Amino acid sequence: MKKAKVGIGIIGLGVVAGQVARVLLEKGEDLSRQVGCQLVIRRIKVLEEDLKRPLAGEIDRKLFVTSDDDLFNDPEIDIIVEAIGGENPAFAYLKRALDGGRHVVTSNKEVIAKHGTALGKLAAEHSVSLRYEGSVGGGIPLISRFQYDLVANRINGIYAIINGTTNYILSRMAREGIDFDVALKNAQALGYAEANPANDIEGIDAVYKLAILATLAFQTPVSPEDVYREGISRLGSRDFQYACELGFAIKLLAIAKSSDGRVEARVHPVLIPENLLLAKVDGVYNAILVRGDLVGDVLFYGEGAGANPTASAVVADIVAAARAIMGGNAITSVPALATPSGNKIKPISQIETRYYLRMTVTDDAGVLAQIARVLGDHRISISQVIQKTNDDTAKTAEIVIMTHPARGDSMQTALDEFGRLGVVKEVSNFIRVEEIGSQP
Amino acid sequence: MKKAKVGIGIIGLGVVAGQVARVLLEKGEDLSRQVGCQLVIRRIKVLEEDLKRPLAGEIDRKLFVTSDDDLFNDPEIDIIVEAIGGENPAFAYLKRALDGGRHVVTSNKEVIAKHGTALGKLAAEHSVSLRYEGSVGGGIPLISRFQYDLVANRINGIYAIINGTTNYILSRMAREGIDFDVALKNAQALGYAEANPANDIEGIDAVYKLAILATLAFQTPVSPEDVYREGISRLGSRDFQYACELGFAIKLLAIAKSSDGRVEARVHPVLIPENLLLAKVDGVYNAILVRGDLVGDVLFYGEGAGANPTASAVVADIVAAARAIMGGNAITSVPALATPSGNKIKPISQIETRYYLRMTVTDDAGVLAQIARVLGDHRISISQVIQKTNDDTAKTAEIVIMTHPARGDSMQTALDEFGRLGVVKEVSNFIRVEEIGSQP
Repeated sequence: MKKAKVGIGIIGLGVVAGQVARVLLEKGEDLSRQVGCQLVIRRIKVLEEDLKRPLAGEIDRKLFVTSDDDLFNDPEIDIIVEAIGGENPAFAYLKRALDGGRHVVTSNKEVIAKHGTALGKLAAEHSVSLRYEGSVGGGIPLISRFQYDLVANRINGIYAIINGTTNYILSRMAREGIDFDVALKNAQALGYAEANPANDIEGIDAVYKLAILATLAFQTPVSPEDVYREGISRLGSRDFQYACELGFAIKLLAIAKSSDGRVEARVHPVLIPENLLLAKVDGVYNAILVRGDLVGDVLFYGEGAGANPTASAVVADIVAAARAIMGGNAITSVPALATPSGNKIKPISQIETRYYLRMTVTDDAGVLAQIARVLGDHRISISQVIQKTNDDTAKTAEIVIMTHPARGDSMQTALDEFGRLGVVKEVSNFIRVEEIGSQP
Repeated sequence: MKKAKVGIGIIGLGVVAGQVARVLLEKGEDLSRQVGCQLVIRRIKVLEEDLKRPLAGEIDRKLFVTSDDDLFNDPEIDIIVEAIGGENPAFAYLKRALDGGRHVVTSNKEVIAKHGTALGKLAAEHSVSLRYEGSVGGGIPLISRFQYDLVANRINGIYAIINGTTNYILSRMAREGIDFDVALKNAQALGYAEANPANDIEGIDAVYKLAILATLAFQTPVSPEDVYREGISRLGSRDFQYACELGFAIKLLAIAKSSDGRVEARVHPVLIPENLLLAKVDGVYNAILVRGDLVGDVLFYGEGAGANPTASAVVADIVAAARAIMGGNAITSVPALATPSGNKIKPISQIETRYYLRMTVTDDAGVLAQIARVLGDHRISISQVIQKTNDDTAKTAEIVIMTHPARGDSMQTALDEFGRLGVVKEVSNFIRVEEIGSQP
């Protein structure tokens, strides 16, 4: 017999959870019609301080519980929605929900990136679904694409702008020629960056999201520790100026590729050709380019965060879980894989990219010969050298070198040797260059 | 008991059908593992001439049948894939398949645009699924978005570049300053436009696709006849030059909006602000912007046609149908709606947009006053007037007028009156302007 009602328990009443509750209450009738059964919020597990939020006043107080047991012991709850964020206690909540045979919906990127494979196995053991569309890219439909729409493809690569804060900062630096610190302050003043911005500007948030996407795309567990990471704080306004002159934009990209049975995954600033669509994604928006062997390049673009977009994804997951309950079948969204990932990850030292180098050197004849020799010793070819500015007082010059593809370890050794070369006063920056290839 | 095999029948061996067969044969094992049962091609219904195609040599000849009955009477076929295109006999095939209780997968935009609602009802009656992800945007995941990922949203608008041929032609006209005829010939030489290009350049192909998207987005049947249509052949190189000077790009957009319970749907050239991401989509690519009340603006971009991208979508649909068969539940992708659409469609005459007008007028004082009076009589305000070129011999001048928003019927009447105004030698072009609003 089909159920007439699907019961929902929500953990949290923060920005996302509150909006999810509001959408379910406001659009419940329409959604119920589409699912073919009533979607009923049974309990909202809150902290005492949540009850002071303005939203709390809009919701029937009888739904609120402050004890975990009151939520988990309600036999009429079929789906548990977690939207408190962070690793703990969210992870414990999700395990308890799955162990209790509840379908789980979460938008928690950290817990999925770190424990998604384990949670996916737990879900499979209990024949329930684990869904987390909201964990990457807000409401942009992404997660399910890999198991559904792109299922016939071998995925070769992902190139993604998946952190709105950093993309906003980089967009302003590019457009206005301002320095990182100024752009960060602007972003903080507008609420696009947090008071402690490390999670965003150091690329940690993007690492979580890339680990999730790469795990799905390549059907190999990729953990946050497997992802190489560099933040954006060392980018200077001059780098944007020179990149622009060379026909490139600077973006913080999350890149994952698969070849020869090995996966590479990295988050760092890159120069990309300015004519690519990805280069034109400005502000707090996200854009995720997925390259498949059949579909070619598809790009998904939209708001990557925020209460409404994330609620859009979370409610879609709730509806999908409800349909699975109604239809009697549940598909877990995480491929439950037994193989450990370690040996399948290609370390950054072995990854080949082109490089942009900006350095200050003494303004003498023969300097370039010495630099070229160091690069040549490590089989790094130069594709372009530009002398940018001279400082006549200090008798130094700033030069920019664009290399041909070189391994990470070769470049690292060359950079170390530059430090010992008397003529190199400073390596001001080195940034990887990604051509990305065919459109976009 | 779960089935161990899902049988597939394919109608056609053309570009798409052939690639679908090839993908199923090459990737069958991997796909079967993901579905949890074997996907087996049982029969491929071909015409005699199909057997001469090179692809036919790669496929076991025992699969080929030339009689319809040999396909439809095979009791082990669960899913029928139609990829012959065109309205007939495809429509009859799809009806027969659904009537026989087979799940149907098609990439046929014409048949779905014209008969999707009827076919959806038939599918529902027989408790089977009708899927057509490949009918719009090649492999770009679109169709299922409305019923799944965006289900919590009220969709307010769709703005789409969904015909690669016309976008290629317009991109070349914009970049190279060439005329339409030249750009069309180039497109034909490269195989991007057909020898008889009417279906593309007159917007017919885009109308089919928009009718499908609007039906899904607004849950109201929108037929091809409900969609207002203008092609691109009357665009001149000067329009591109002037649009560029004014900060606009010219695109053939498929636009659908819903407000106050009425739907507007139209395909015509538009000026859009050049800073929008949509304006930067060049070449044969497609981009579909969907605006939802929660998700905001999401944009999907990729190759809109071609054997591989379309096969990506068709095989994904086959896998989805197979999963539904395995799980015992089928969700039809077309909302089966009983309400006729007629009265819900907003006619073009009532639709308000800004306009770009290019006209040749006599080079006299007082001309502009006469033009402004005609526009004013119909409550059309001018936002900008630019005198472009003078022809001293003919004593004429070319002017460009940008208006504020005006109703379609008001503008049509004003254009008629210009024809009777002695000072207006020619209205060379008028193009609607869409601001589209918030990013992108």
